[in-house]
Amino acid sequence: MASVACTAAAAQAQGVVARPGNALRSAAPLRVARAGRSAVVVAAGPKLDLHSNVFPKELVKFAETEEYIYRGGRDKYSKLPEAFKGIKQVGVIGWGSQAPAQAQNLRDSFAEAGMDTKVVIGLRPDSPSCEEARAVGFTEADGTLGEVFDVISKSDMVVLLISDAAQARLYPRILAAMKPGSTLGLSHGFLLGVMQNDGADFRKDINVVLVAPKGMGPSVRRLYEQGKEVNGAGINASFAVHQDATGTAADIAVGWAIGVGAPFAFCTTLESEYKSDIYGERAVLLGAVHGIVESLFRRYVRQGMSDEEAFKQSVESITGPITRIISRDGMLGVYNQFSDADKKIFEQAYSASFAPAMDICYEIYEDVACGNEIKSVVNAVERFGRWPMGKIDQTHMWQVGQKVRAERKEDQIPINPFTAGVYIATMMATVQTLQEKGHPYSEICNESIIEAVDSLNPYMHARGVAFMVDNCSYTARLGSRKWAPRFDYILDQQAYVAVDAGKQADAETIQAFKSHPVHGALAECSRMRPSVDISVGVDGDNTGVGAGAARTEFRSVAATATA
Amino acid sequence: MASVACTAAAAQAQGVVARPGNALRSAAPLRVARAGRSAVVVAAGPKLDLHSNVFPKELVKFAETEEYIYRGGRDKYSKLPEAFKGIKQVGVIGWGSQAPAQAQNLRDSFAEAGMDTKVVIGLRPDSPSCEEARAVGFTEADGTLGEVFDVISKSDMVVLLISDAAQARLYPRILAAMKPGSTLGLSHGFLLGVMQNDGADFRKDINVVLVAPKGMGPSVRRLYEQGKEVNGAGINASFAVHQDATGTAADIAVGWAIGVGAPFAFCTTLESEYKSDIYGERAVLLGAVHGIVESLFRRYVRQGMSDEEAFKQSVESITGPITRIISRDGMLGVYNQFSDADKKIFEQAYSASFAPAMDICYEIYEDVACGNEIKSVVNAVERFGRWPMGKIDQTHMWQVGQKVRAERKEDQIPINPFTAGVYIATMMATVQTLQEKGHPYSEICNESIIEAVDSLNPYMHARGVAFMVDNCSYTARLGSRKWAPRFDYILDQQAYVAVDAGKQADAETIQAFKSHPVHGALAECSRMRPSVDISVGVDGDNTGVGAGAARTEFRSVAATATA
Repeated sequence: MASVACTAAAAQAQGVVARPGNALRSAAPLRVARAGRSAVVVAAGPKLDLHSNVFPKELVKFAETEEYIYRGGRDKYSKLPEAFKGIKQVGVIGWGSQAPAQAQNLRDSFAEAGMDTKVVIGLRPDSPSCEEARAVGFTEADGTLGEVFDVISKSDMVVLLISDAAQARLYPRILAAMKPGSTLGLSHGFLLGVMQNDGADFRKDINVVLVAPKGMGPSVRRLYEQGKEVNGAGINASFAVHQDATGTAADIAVGWAIGVGAPFAFCTTLESEYKSDIYGERAVLLGAVHGIVESLFRRYVRQGMSDEEAFKQSVESITGPITRIISRDGMLGVYNQFSDADKKIFEQAYSASFAPAMDICYEIYEDVACGNEIKSVVNAVERFGRWPMGKIDQTHMWQVGQKVRAERKEDQIPINPFTAGVYIATMMATVQTLQEKGHPYSEICNESIIEAVDSLNPYMHARGVAFMVDNCSYTARLGSRKWAPRFDYILDQQAYVAVDAGKQADAETIQAFKSHPVHGALAECSRMRPSVDISVGVDGDNTGVGAGAARTEFRSVAATATA
Repeated sequence: MASVACTAAAAQAQGVVARPGNALRSAAPLRVARAGRSAVVVAAGPKLDLHSNVFPKELVKFAETEEYIYRGGRDKYSKLPEAFKGIKQVGVIGWGSQAPAQAQNLRDSFAEAGMDTKVVIGLRPDSPSCEEARAVGFTEADGTLGEVFDVISKSDMVVLLISDAAQARLYPRILAAMKPGSTLGLSHGFLLGVMQNDGADFRKDINVVLVAPKGMGPSVRRLYEQGKEVNGAGINASFAVHQDATGTAADIAVGWAIGVGAPFAFCTTLESEYKSDIYGERAVLLGAVHGIVESLFRRYVRQGMSDEEAFKQSVESITGPITRIISRDGMLGVYNQFSDADKKIFEQAYSASFAPAMDICYEIYEDVACGNEIKSVVNAVERFGRWPMGKIDQTHMWQVGQKVRAERKEDQIPINPFTAGVYIATMMATVQTLQEKGHPYSEICNESIIEAVDSLNPYMHARGVAFMVDNCSYTARLGSRKWAPRFDYILDQQAYVAVDAGKQADAETIQAFKSHPVHGALAECSRMRPSVDISVGVDGDNTGVGAGAARTEFRSVAATATA
């Protein structure tokens, strides 16, 4: 999910192998990745070498592969003037989840670096978000708030943070309005997918770069502010150079990532980013976890548990202790803490669930990769006028959940081994699919595990799975609506019936789980993990909630119920 | 669903308005419908005028619209030599559900008409189906059985009846092998959808026509044989002319429809046919009915019914009495037979379900229309090697169903008004969507209602919904797997919670149901309905079951369980 992801902070980056700067700079020519639709070019090893002439890159080993990364921190701000050379104005378009955070962070960073580069917000003049922008100091009076296309036409860099659907609708006008030689900045590769479906291409005289912070906007801002005291606090990001018209696109991209506060920036491509992102939120991050708990809740009730107990053994178990253990000790940590008897139950559930989960994960990935999923999202948004997307939170199960959360005793939530087996099998299927499709481990770990256990599941634990599903971006929400029931049905039809028929664990499947390189890669990622946890709020709380037109990522139940 | 549809027979076609033949022939020039992807050109009224110089067309009124139809029957066979002029050999490729029936029917009809046109079967030489073809008299010895591409290259007409997936894979070779000036005959427009996705087009020097019998192959054969005694017995068909290279394509298409035994042939286009067909099987014909009963069964159990009772009040109620009443008296017939109290329950369930069902129906239709669904099917079939499609019949609910069917007392199956409201709302949503998308009523009625109540539901009633889902074509099966859970979830999340919250029936929605023109159109279609019901077999029976490579339409549980 774009902008709902792994928060990261100061933690010392042990295991990062730094090479002498000069040797690095000449290591490889800038290779702009332009993958064909059918495959991501990213392969094992640091094949993706986005070279900046301003910032030094470092080589990191993730399991059996290596990747180049860039290290941020406030001590790098002195290089921002060089990275943003010639950029007198950055236009930030929109005021959704990311825009308020990125605009303020960039403004602060430019000030700290003594730059006169202006950050200007572009909004529709009648947008209710204008008031919010003015409240944090972007005003028409000093020329830092203006009309969308006017801002675009006067900016040397356009950071496009309007919703996916708005991008799909407006991109021809936006591209046409841009200055020759300017830079288009995206925080999600979704637009590339839309343009591929349309058979369109970016104009050749602009740079096209991406910085995708691995956290929601409010976290991007909050951790940046903490970073004023702790150098290196902030939200990690991936970045990409899709088109380099000026020869400086990588400098701008890395500068942007560092300027919004990323302690670490990982190389990717627009294509790899949007595929893994749209796929991930449909798989274990959101769609699958929803489908899994629906199927498990039903199963446990049918087996004789009370509704409350079934909810604890399914939802609470995943979003509480299982999530915390994975975050701290990885997936094997969950397995290892079970008794021998519970290990057997886990193994049986894992074995029965892995192949069905792979089946759906592959279907999702290929539907995303071939353009179907993006086309469906664009079509669906156009139908909202007639059929607004419904909420899921009124069904019996989620009503039970509200009661269970209200009476929760955190230390009494069970770690159900069957639940853990099903959930971790699906997490591994999400990982395995991305790996087979050639994504780099930094991306795999984030889109399959880190975002789940450090961002989304804690949110769900605090406010309910249904709240998360009903309040994320349209793209994610449509995906969850579409794929959750698929995981539900296939687990019920294939995995659970196999277990009920007495099918025992498959030794090969369990061995593959235990020895999978992702465990090592995840440990490496954890070394770049924040020491500061994000705030998730509680039921009824509006933390981070806004009302901007594009702010579909994160709205309160109260706000949408009365809307 | 292609080839699983409304069986039709002798019944007198009252209400058919015949005009003098000569006036008709000069009424309109041949208009080959080539719809753009985004819309079906078929509009209200007889816009679709596929004119044959050999057979007389008739004008029929369906509700507020008119359509041209052609009437078949054995008394028309004398015109077959003229319709098939220049066609010395018809190559029937494949031996699935349709091929054995169509090949034998054509052979018999040509003989009856005193023609020397040969019907030749094309199969892979190592195909197990060769033995079956020989058993009914197609042999290498007399030149009526040969290798696929050899048969294609020597035929003046190629009737392509291999599976959707095989067509998608082989069409470039097939088209290349055809004679200039020959005719490609399809029984499903699926291939056009595939070619549109590929950006490919048919070569211009051949005719491309469609005849889609509205019934499975075994019924196409059985009713044809009955027709030897009752003139006009047979299976209705729709037909289309997609490309007319010789100026005689409509004659060939109508001749083909009449030659395989259609008592009535309705005009359509390849595009209209594949869209309505693929859509219909995902909506109420298969996907929706599966999702509806899953959600209702769960609801009734949660409300305190025993498993058996819940199964009767949901599945049995739909596939038994509700289906029979619709078949005989239409959807309003179900409503009218309820008591006032039950009418209120029906109306409440209908009102709550219609909009959510429309939401999913529109999503399905647009996913089909934009090419997504076909692309997903083609991709899915390529994954079967790694993840064979699982069966659904082992879950708890379907095990309950087996027991209920075994103990069934047909006259004691309840007509549950809530179940009826949900089911008929979904049927009306299926209708309404096709109507808004511009399909002709003959097609709407068939793909939303007739095929359900006269073919698929009786099958499900006899052998279980799960059997039907697990034994239909891959395209249908994948569609059901994908969309059933969507209907299930949305009904649960939106319709049932609204009812439980006390939401009353919406007068406008109910009025729209009662006054919908489809009721009149359906009554008109019923006048062309068979007097002979198809045979559906019983649990464990192998009626119509075969083992040919492409015969995925109709395989027994026993056959696939041991495969």
